[in-house]
Amino acid sequence: MTQALTYTPDADPARAHGPYPGTFIVFEGGDGSGKTTQIKLLAEALTERGYSVLVTREPGGTDIGEKLRALVLEHGNGSIDPHTEALIFAASRAAHAHQKIQPALEAGTIVLCDRYIDSSAAYQGAGRGLGLETITDLSRWATGNLLPDITVLLDVSLAESRARAGARGHADRMEAADDTFHSALHSAFRSLAQAAPERYALINGAQPIEQVHKQVLDAALAVLS
Amino acid sequence: MTQALTYTPDADPARAHGPYPGTFIVFEGGDGSGKTTQIKLLAEALTERGYSVLVTREPGGTDIGEKLRALVLEHGNGSIDPHTEALIFAASRAAHAHQKIQPALEAGTIVLCDRYIDSSAAYQGAGRGLGLETITDLSRWATGNLLPDITVLLDVSLAESRARAGARGHADRMEAADDTFHSALHSAFRSLAQAAPERYALINGAQPIEQVHKQVLDAALAVLS
Repeated sequence: MTQALTYTPDADPARAHGPYPGTFIVFEGGDGSGKTTQIKLLAEALTERGYSVLVTREPGGTDIGEKLRALVLEHGNGSIDPHTEALIFAASRAAHAHQKIQPALEAGTIVLCDRYIDSSAAYQGAGRGLGLETITDLSRWATGNLLPDITVLLDVSLAESRARAGARGHADRMEAADDTFHSALHSAFRSLAQAAPERYALINGAQPIEQVHKQVLDAALAVLS
Repeated sequence: MTQALTYTPDADPARAHGPYPGTFIVFEGGDGSGKTTQIKLLAEALTERGYSVLVTREPGGTDIGEKLRALVLEHGNGSIDPHTEALIFAASRAAHAHQKIQPALEAGTIVLCDRYIDSSAAYQGAGRGLGLETITDLSRWATGNLLPDITVLLDVSLAESRARAGARGHADRMEAADDTFHSALHSAFRSLAQAAPERYALINGAQPIEQVHKQVLDAALAVLS
């Protein structure tokens, strides 16, 4: 498949990455990589230091985003074509970015977001074959090019990731996909991080929780300073 | 606003315009331009000639498309940002194209569709300022570049269009927008047709119904022959 969407950002610097008083930190990684735990620990550590912190995830509590996400889950694997699915996720992200993340950043808040553009790139772009760059560009357009200041990628091997997700009893449609799909996701996350290493903190998520937390906190404080 | 999405079609000719045994005819034009009447008359005339005809409009009776369209209408003017709205319409179109239009064309049917990509280009691209080319390219990607064999543009002046729509008591959110918005739509439809005249039948919709019908039928038969 060679068809592609290419995004050309607005030349207006006021729309570019990082113009806000707040700081935008995204957590990425496969299911079972420990994102939820690490976001909670980071939020606590930053709050203790006096920062204003917003923890969010898509659909992020926007009314329309919740309904869009419910539509995808309700219709289940296979009954929605990949383009429709990708566009619904992009619509949900657009609402989340414009209605919730951007206003928080403008108010000076640290926003910790569980999954963002890279998850779509990995799931729809690599996993469903629509193309990493195409799905990334679709989301960049959707969000008005609102990009994280740093993305924390919790890297966990496929075997470890599946063992953790299984232990939690998760079996939604995304997680029920096969090993090939999961391998594609894992490779996609790593290649996105390797393509722009200055904007990622690649952390071995298989380490003990406290050790991962220390590295996450260091990465966050480096961006805040 | 200079940010843009650009679509590069698949090089596979099997995905390009016109590879199906069926024929795809789209009707475009502002509210009150007579599309509904003319589609009905053309469907009757083609059926009498022995053709298999499917009349459709977005969301086109796809389950997910209906729910997406309902979301936009429910949330009303102003509470959805333009990017979210455009992506929801593109998702609805993707489902319509992949699940309904393409299978009908593969089965040799003549598909008459009330509004398609040009309406999004006009409403979201020109009307809401997201860019004609960007919204066109978004829909081309969404549909796998499934383009009409001919687009019948029923051209009616702004004053005539509003008089007709008003007479029918229409007052939905699109039609409640102001004159500037409607003028932008009217210009957008004309410029799309002028940019690719071989793929449009530009017909003066202010003529008597039977006269318009004769010109529409001639345009359809020319494509079918």
